[in-house]
Amino acid sequence: MGIVLGDNQYGKAETRLVRVSRTGDTHELVDLNVSVALAGDLDATHLSGDNAGVLPTDSQKNTVYAFARQGIGAIEEFGLRLARHFVDSQPAIHRARVSIESYGWRRLGEHSFARAGDEARTATVTYDGSWAWVVSGLTGLVLLNSTASEFWGYVKDPYTTLPETRDRILATAVTARWRHHGTRSVWDESYADTRAELVAAFTGTHSYSLQQTLYAMGRAVLDARPEVVEVRLSLPNRHHLLVDLGPFDLDNPNEVFVAADRPYGLIEGTVLRDDAAPAGLAWW
Amino acid sequence: MGIVLGDNQYGKAETRLVRVSRTGDTHELVDLNVSVALAGDLDATHLSGDNAGVLPTDSQKNTVYAFARQGIGAIEEFGLRLARHFVDSQPAIHRARVSIESYGWRRLGEHSFARAGDEARTATVTYDGSWAWVVSGLTGLVLLNSTASEFWGYVKDPYTTLPETRDRILATAVTARWRHHGTRSVWDESYADTRAELVAAFTGTHSYSLQQTLYAMGRAVLDARPEVVEVRLSLPNRHHLLVDLGPFDLDNPNEVFVAADRPYGLIEGTVLRDDAAPAGLAWW
Amino acid sequence: MGIVLGDNQYGKAETRLVRVSRTGDTHELVDLNVSVALAGDLDATHLSGDNAGVLPTDSQKNTVYAFARQGIGAIEEFGLRLARHFVDSQPAIHRARVSIESYGWRRLGEHSFARAGDEARTATVTYDGSWAWVVSGLTGLVLLNSTASEFWGYVKDPYTTLPETRDRILATAVTARWRHHGTRSVWDESYADTRAELVAAFTGTHSYSLQQTLYAMGRAVLDARPEVVEVRLSLPNRHHLLVDLGPFDLDNPNEVFVAADRPYGLIEGTVLRDDAAPAGLAWW
Amino acid sequence: MGIVLGDNQYGKAETRLVRVSRTGDTHELVDLNVSVALAGDLDATHLSGDNAGVLPTDSQKNTVYAFARQGIGAIEEFGLRLARHFVDSQPAIHRARVSIESYGWRRLGEHSFARAGDEARTATVTYDGSWAWVVSGLTGLVLLNSTASEFWGYVKDPYTTLPETRDRILATAVTARWRHHGTRSVWDESYADTRAELVAAFTGTHSYSLQQTLYAMGRAVLDARPEVVEVRLSLPNRHHLLVDLGPFDLDNPNEVFVAADRPYGLIEGTVLRDDAAPAGLAWW
Repeated sequence: MGIVLGDNQYGKAETRLVRVSRTGDTHELVDLNVSVALAGDLDATHLSGDNAGVLPTDSQKNTVYAFARQGIGAIEEFGLRLARHFVDSQPAIHRARVSIESYGWRRLGEHSFARAGDEARTATVTYDGSWAWVVSGLTGLVLLNSTASEFWGYVKDPYTTLPETRDRILATAVTARWRHHGTRSVWDESYADTRAELVAAFTGTHSYSLQQTLYAMGRAVLDARPEVVEVRLSLPNRHHLLVDLGPFDLDNPNEVFVAADRPYGLIEGTVLRDDAAPAGLAWW
Repeated sequence: MGIVLGDNQYGKAETRLVRVSRTGDTHELVDLNVSVALAGDLDATHLSGDNAGVLPTDSQKNTVYAFARQGIGAIEEFGLRLARHFVDSQPAIHRARVSIESYGWRRLGEHSFARAGDEARTATVTYDGSWAWVVSGLTGLVLLNSTASEFWGYVKDPYTTLPETRDRILATAVTARWRHHGTRSVWDESYADTRAELVAAFTGTHSYSLQQTLYAMGRAVLDARPEVVEVRLSLPNRHHLLVDLGPFDLDNPNEVFVAADRPYGLIEGTVLRDDAAPAGLAWW
Repeated sequence: MGIVLGDNQYGKAETRLVRVSRTGDTHELVDLNVSVALAGDLDATHLSGDNAGVLPTDSQKNTVYAFARQGIGAIEEFGLRLARHFVDSQPAIHRARVSIESYGWRRLGEHSFARAGDEARTATVTYDGSWAWVVSGLTGLVLLNSTASEFWGYVKDPYTTLPETRDRILATAVTARWRHHGTRSVWDESYADTRAELVAAFTGTHSYSLQQTLYAMGRAVLDARPEVVEVRLSLPNRHHLLVDLGPFDLDNPNEVFVAADRPYGLIEGTVLRDDAAPAGLAWW
Repeated sequence: MGIVLGDNQYGKAETRLVRVSRTGDTHELVDLNVSVALAGDLDATHLSGDNAGVLPTDSQKNTVYAFARQGIGAIEEFGLRLARHFVDSQPAIHRARVSIESYGWRRLGEHSFARAGDEARTATVTYDGSWAWVVSGLTGLVLLNSTASEFWGYVKDPYTTLPETRDRILATAVTARWRHHGTRSVWDESYADTRAELVAAFTGTHSYSLQQTLYAMGRAVLDARPEVVEVRLSLPNRHHLLVDLGPFDLDNPNEVFVAADRPYGLIEGTVLRDDAAPAGLAWW
């Protein structure tokens, strides 16, 4: 019996990069948070502190900035360029994962912008020296239906006190990630349309459970976007509790709600094509 | 010599309220965070724990929900109703301050909405039994100019290493509050136009310092809105540092930046009419 | 009628500084967050962008690091050194405020430490060229009594539903600031003893309201520490709500509680000597 | 080709529970954050909104509170009781995962306590109807060595600018999770000793890389605790950057540092016994 080193990885997390592109007087703005993770033949640094195979995380950060000089393109493309660079240039590195969050800005003028909230477009690219996987996504998209949501017919066990309802608020902060079947796509169009499908499925589903809405959202993406083979959704149920105004001789016909913080339901699920290729390292 | 009780106040903070209004099939959504602070003849509870003059903070929360049943209106109006209620109905309470944050939602359908980022519209109403003061505001409005910002001609002391620049990114997260000269206004129109003036002044000012931009923003509001008599601005300077790509044989003509977290400059200032009435308890 | 510049200030916020002192093999560690605010004759930069009187916030940051080279001492002393430097060396600067948070670390070995939670010791020093004021404090000290707290005998208005209780949990996250009557003290001893008095008063008070506990805390400090003339306390009431286990045929004799996030009561008050010198700019 | 539902789970997250135990006048306090995730035969609710197999997340929350009435014990035991309950009592549920964070409080008196920082003890229990897995852990343990850390001999690629160092600060916020080989243990003793081993390995390792320290920490636990078969560590490198005081004619012999926020290195790895039983659902 012995003690051994198992899976391991390292890298620079949360390199904050803003890239301005100037074409005449009109500027473009890209605002990213880039995290790199590398794995490979790294036993020596763990076992003896021999760093001969270690590319410093500081160098990874420099690489992100230097590569940005050439332009970013779609974040999926930027991730592919970076991931391939690290594995192809470093003998000891056999896998790279580059995760990018992109924050939106609304144009206010030729060189003026307003941050468009906390929603972020995301991409995670993994590369193992011969194959690459691309997962696109978004996070922080907060959606709410003020009706067209019911919840009833559920299990009543000895700990159940929740009343059934035929009309409630349904709200969530969507985190979605979707796997592409290849590494080439019309990334920006694919993203915009996938996001639109998620929103349309949320708003358009008369919901009997958040699970039903989750499945409808995943299915809508797969129906609309042939390049997407798998969708993973994480949907916190942002409970809005009807206030009992009875003690004040007031009714409350689904109008006054407490927006609760904790606890919250958390609904997570995957919708995929039954002939999807194996995920490989896509979700590493 | 003795020890005495000085200024004091108490109240319920951060009551989270969502109000749905249904007119036919089209719903309206209001999403608020309401904080109440009360002051008055409260020596007894401090000195001996005699609570005969204390309206529980739980009752204050209930009041917020009950008053919401009748509808909200502009948040300034809702604050006025609540502040007047607490002082006028409670003998021991001589002052009330109601602070409200309102979160924006974009309409997606008749009963569907998407949260519009972290920016909040704010209002603080103070009432002392005979007079009321209204301060409107906003927070979390993140603005950026990718050029038209310079910084030079400043003091060089022995600790100065910052190079002068004729072209930099200027970015900030605006917190603004503005005092009205009365308690009646076209609140929603006033808010929308004041916000537009702040944005236009930020984007339209060729800036030699964030202080200059701050003053231009305050002045623009006062020029445009006669009902506003004083503007207070707090502008963190969200530094974007040009990356030195020289070690990689790359130039960087103001294109690749680090978005820095800390430290940050913090510029705060007031712009007001020289004939503004005294502020009284407006900023209490 | 005209539009004028009112109160204003600027400075570098949240400069993060760690200072290691080495005496033989035993190291000392100081971990600070330093914020500077300066005010004075700054009209030119606001009105025209003329920065001739502006010491860059970057230089302020450099000053913090350079002054740290000589050693820190008590944070009150470090604040005094910095505040005096900015006003005395800069003709345009007439006031300086230096606010410092100090984070605790527990010693684990000669050069090893563990961060001691989120509680911070604070100091705010203000200087106007001839006079200085020192306010010490702490934040993030979370205290809880699991009994010896009652709440009854309060106002019952039409919106009151809260049941009276003779036994509840009382919990708060203490933010306290206390003004010294001068600028010389045994700062570290004064801090340690003041903190101990606050804790002892919280735990030792059989409480009928959080206001009563607040006053007891302030009074205990003033009784024990002659150099302190005024104490300001901000005490959020971290509600712990008794869970109704009746539906599950269980009693709940004050044993199972929900720790609630929002809303929360917020109790704020001042306790001071009736012969305290005027506060001047202490709370600026 | 079709579209199918893949892996899915749901549950109540972040149920905040405080449990007071009274034995005579001396109280004990337990402060938990409990998250439940259930999986099983949940196709119907996803595909058609038929909730006949769905135990509401609200009922899960109630269960946590009701079970707490009987006492908590070690959090691993509490997790086992809850996980077994959900699977054994619900026909549609085939797997449960209960994740618990426990926050520390220091005793100040018979019924008085102070929160002991942000560090949390954690446990995750998974149960599939016949087998259970227990993973203990901690998060938020911030450790720092002010010397005895070097970093040199690493790869120098064209993007490397980092200077080698023989003396630096090494600091991290430890997140550790360790898998037990069974479901019975002296949980509290096991936790206390494992935590002590992690701390001792961090402080006692003269480090040439954070990876080396990580491996030493994992190995120390496995050497000391036979009941632990696998340790997973996530160690952000909290960089402390030496300030260049040269422009101010000052040296800086490893005394004045910037505590940087982002980016940060992130070092993650696993240390395990080579004869450890397969992990099964332990890390689900």
